[in-house]
Amino acid sequence: MPPTASAIGDARTGWQYPPPMGDGDGDVVTGSLEPTGRFSTAGLSRWWHAAARSDELARAPLGRVVFDVPVVLFRDASGAAAALVDRCPHRNVPLSVGRCVHGQIECGYHGWRFDGAGRCCAVPGLAERGDPDRGARRVAALPVVESDGMVWVAVGAGGPATAEPPRLVGVGEPGYRTVGLTLDVPGPMLAAVENALDVPHTSFLHRGPFRGRAERVPVGVTVRHRGDAIEAVFEGEPVPPGLIGRLLSPDGGVVEHTDRFVAPALAQVEYRLGSRHIALNACYTPVDDRSCRLIAIAAYRLPIPESVARSALLPLARVILGQDNRMLRLQQQTVERFGGERFVHTPIDVLGPHITRLVRRLERGEATSGALPADEQVTLLT
Amino acid sequence: MPPTASAIGDARTGWQYPPPMGDGDGDVVTGSLEPTGRFSTAGLSRWWHAAARSDELARAPLGRVVFDVPVVLFRDASGAAAALVDRCPHRNVPLSVGRCVHGQIECGYHGWRFDGAGRCCAVPGLAERGDPDRGARRVAALPVVESDGMVWVAVGAGGPATAEPPRLVGVGEPGYRTVGLTLDVPGPMLAAVENALDVPHTSFLHRGPFRGRAERVPVGVTVRHRGDAIEAVFEGEPVPPGLIGRLLSPDGGVVEHTDRFVAPALAQVEYRLGSRHIALNACYTPVDDRSCRLIAIAAYRLPIPESVARSALLPLARVILGQDNRMLRLQQQTVERFGGERFVHTPIDVLGPHITRLVRRLERGEATSGALPADEQVTLLT
Amino acid sequence: MPPTASAIGDARTGWQYPPPMGDGDGDVVTGSLEPTGRFSTAGLSRWWHAAARSDELARAPLGRVVFDVPVVLFRDASGAAAALVDRCPHRNVPLSVGRCVHGQIECGYHGWRFDGAGRCCAVPGLAERGDPDRGARRVAALPVVESDGMVWVAVGAGGPATAEPPRLVGVGEPGYRTVGLTLDVPGPMLAAVENALDVPHTSFLHRGPFRGRAERVPVGVTVRHRGDAIEAVFEGEPVPPGLIGRLLSPDGGVVEHTDRFVAPALAQVEYRLGSRHIALNACYTPVDDRSCRLIAIAAYRLPIPESVARSALLPLARVILGQDNRMLRLQQQTVERFGGERFVHTPIDVLGPHITRLVRRLERGEATSGALPADEQVTLLT
Repeated sequence: MPPTASAIGDARTGWQYPPPMGDGDGDVVTGSLEPTGRFSTAGLSRWWHAAARSDELARAPLGRVVFDVPVVLFRDASGAAAALVDRCPHRNVPLSVGRCVHGQIECGYHGWRFDGAGRCCAVPGLAERGDPDRGARRVAALPVVESDGMVWVAVGAGGPATAEPPRLVGVGEPGYRTVGLTLDVPGPMLAAVENALDVPHTSFLHRGPFRGRAERVPVGVTVRHRGDAIEAVFEGEPVPPGLIGRLLSPDGGVVEHTDRFVAPALAQVEYRLGSRHIALNACYTPVDDRSCRLIAIAAYRLPIPESVARSALLPLARVILGQDNRMLRLQQQTVERFGGERFVHTPIDVLGPHITRLVRRLERGEATSGALPADEQVTLLT
Repeated sequence: MPPTASAIGDARTGWQYPPPMGDGDGDVVTGSLEPTGRFSTAGLSRWWHAAARSDELARAPLGRVVFDVPVVLFRDASGAAAALVDRCPHRNVPLSVGRCVHGQIECGYHGWRFDGAGRCCAVPGLAERGDPDRGARRVAALPVVESDGMVWVAVGAGGPATAEPPRLVGVGEPGYRTVGLTLDVPGPMLAAVENALDVPHTSFLHRGPFRGRAERVPVGVTVRHRGDAIEAVFEGEPVPPGLIGRLLSPDGGVVEHTDRFVAPALAQVEYRLGSRHIALNACYTPVDDRSCRLIAIAAYRLPIPESVARSALLPLARVILGQDNRMLRLQQQTVERFGGERFVHTPIDVLGPHITRLVRRLERGEATSGALPADEQVTLLT
Repeated sequence: MPPTASAIGDARTGWQYPPPMGDGDGDVVTGSLEPTGRFSTAGLSRWWHAAARSDELARAPLGRVVFDVPVVLFRDASGAAAALVDRCPHRNVPLSVGRCVHGQIECGYHGWRFDGAGRCCAVPGLAERGDPDRGARRVAALPVVESDGMVWVAVGAGGPATAEPPRLVGVGEPGYRTVGLTLDVPGPMLAAVENALDVPHTSFLHRGPFRGRAERVPVGVTVRHRGDAIEAVFEGEPVPPGLIGRLLSPDGGVVEHTDRFVAPALAQVEYRLGSRHIALNACYTPVDDRSCRLIAIAAYRLPIPESVARSALLPLARVILGQDNRMLRLQQQTVERFGGERFVHTPIDVLGPHITRLVRRLERGEATSGALPADEQVTLLT
């Protein structure tokens, strides 16, 4: 239910509803109660975004929505990934509810068929041989590439903003195994990315399954700016309690831990201890400005059987992501209820505010190659 | 979720989202990818539309929505069909949730009663005898007539646009039996009418229960324009495979098949073979611009027991209409998602584009008695 | 589904849709079909409204929405009721989904804690000792008082409009027992208050469980205006049939019955017979302009065991309120469908129109201390 238009609030405490909105610039100030506004990330639609994992593209067509654009994915006759606008030009039924026949996609209403380039190849019942109108029956094809186990698309006008999609860590490298997961996320991409890279909430929200140290330990964090990426490197962090830690080292020790955002929408979390390595590659592809889809591949190099790793990692991930999704849904509902975000930050929100600022610059087309901010040092009780 | 305002698309394939909208004129061009727009049929609200089948009007009042107007139908003291605006003038509760008492409708909240003309006949608890305000408590009555087994209303301002509602085929004629069916349809009237009169999709979408010839056969189709009706006559069509064909002729042969649109919202499909005759009269009454209600009566003259015809026809109809409703829902969702229709036509879309053009002319009040377009000939592989 | 913009109607009966709207002034005229408009009661947000019963505030925080403002209620370290805006300043998750720890409320996402005044008391993981930004992390506290078994808040800008919340009848008085009930109501406050104080519908809608006299009896009603209250006193009313009557007097007799509205949103119904007394205090706190929450305490002085009264009163109340909620939901849906209220009144709608007029005056800040309307006399067949 939308709030009423009439402003209310309390003169004594200074609270005001609806809150005055910022200019949506996304400039965030530590310790400020000023509204930070709320903005669309539609400006990122020209970048490459993960639409599916490669192993999701099998016999059936796959319908996905990317930046509000319905897309149908399938494999063409050569086995290459194809991406078309998910609407039959005849009567506007989604092609994704049809089926794949010999590398063509067939609409479920009248049986029209299209190849991977969107060309109409068959119209059942049409007797004309010359078929002068075939060109008009074409479906728009979207730019698509496949790399690192992901199918990437760029739906925005003007074509892809970058030559290549971002690279994933560990996927396809010798000695690594992978496990994939795809999940709807009931919040915007930026909130989901911050959640994925936010350490403080893990000790609290996930204290059961994931963390849950008896006493908090101070850890030094270095924040590094790298053009279209930002990373937080944790120094002197003990092996975390719980399953992740036990997979890395049954005997404890100090772990190398890096959280990284890579534009436009990739969150990476890495844990290393000697030759052991776990790397989560989490793509948060915007569905619209209120929700996104997590398309993730975890790569790991661990001296344990694949079945053990899989049977442990996936169920753990589902529990943790379920807890996160609940918070992201509540956050989004509250932001909508109040008419915009109004966040206050502390020094231990090490990446979120930086990511928001970086994304805003990328959306405006501002160069990321100029002078980068200096590294920052923060202490976090983890 | 509404699409974002920002335009996106692909420069190389020329696709654009949201698509540029037409002027909503409904002029459709074969083989064009230009948007045809999307328009309201509210201009047809002054025409007679089926609100219910006569046999649906029994003891309980019946609430129906026609062109966004809530209507309550019931039988008055004389047994005649009555139609009132479905809102008690006292506290605005729908009268249709009340009950019928001696040919009056009684509101379920305070028990006020109204006759078929909308006059208030009782206010429980009110002691005044003179009752000077009785006139102010009147409910608006809507024009209503009953013919051919249907209850017709005209809700638009200015009263009925035509003297009589359209006539149904076969209903009430000697030697004919009838079977009725009412169903919500999750798409606009024009999409539903086109679907009902579209032959090409039947060979594909309904190939299981309805059609499913081993080899397609060329059939000549003549399209005839008749003022406020358009019909497609199929010549040389073999008895269709499946149940309909078997009811018409167990031994095959050539059938007379006519599909017909009669303004404002009636689709008729007739199959004849000798004295055997099946006529479907399908009224698609707009609920609003996004959905309609199918109120249908099939009349048939067949040398088989009524129980056989009924036990075969109704279940078959429900299967077919369920498949059609799925497509109409997907079509409507996609049209809304993209902000408007963008249809491309082929010569075998024999009636749909003509119906749209005819309805637009009727909405604008343009005469239908002038020079009619000449007949057209099309070949369809059926 | 919103109605279409195009106006329709019937020239012969004068009905028109959408109906022409009034100026929303709420001036109601007996016997008029003119639209009375529909107005927001947001102007009452500065008044004290019941947010919860005192016995609802236990260990867990309680989230309530009052005039579209999400509020979290809990008991602080001293046991006093506290009310904060239900949004963590950090990442805007509702505080009400967290928990109470030692009189502080803890957010469920990162574990931030706040006291009853909204001060931030803990940020897990933050190492800084000086904590210069603590003030910026404050949550707005709302005015709150506790009296007569209710927790009252005033959410509107400018602080409480009156010094004290309204007083309840019987609660806390010697010889009285109480029973509480809280229920969502799917209609606006004014419709719900009128329903609670409307006698004519009880004989009809609730004729099973509540009333249901064989013959209607004329009862004289005096309507008295009292500044920010209006009451209807029923004279010569026989003990009502059904349970309420039997609790008052197993042997019949004449009962003293008073229905009363007390600004801003309290409906009181009292039955007395000698020393026996039943008083219903029903607060209808607006959630928004379309719905409200009933927070009620019934106080009674009856020579029967508490268990009998409780086991009889609560189930009876739930049946009656369920029937009323159904009508209020249908009323609200119809009002929205037609774009506004269009009520017609009779003399036996003794309180509703007066309450609407009083509330409008209070919203505009017009004095209620001037000359009051004279008493009115009405006869009601009950």
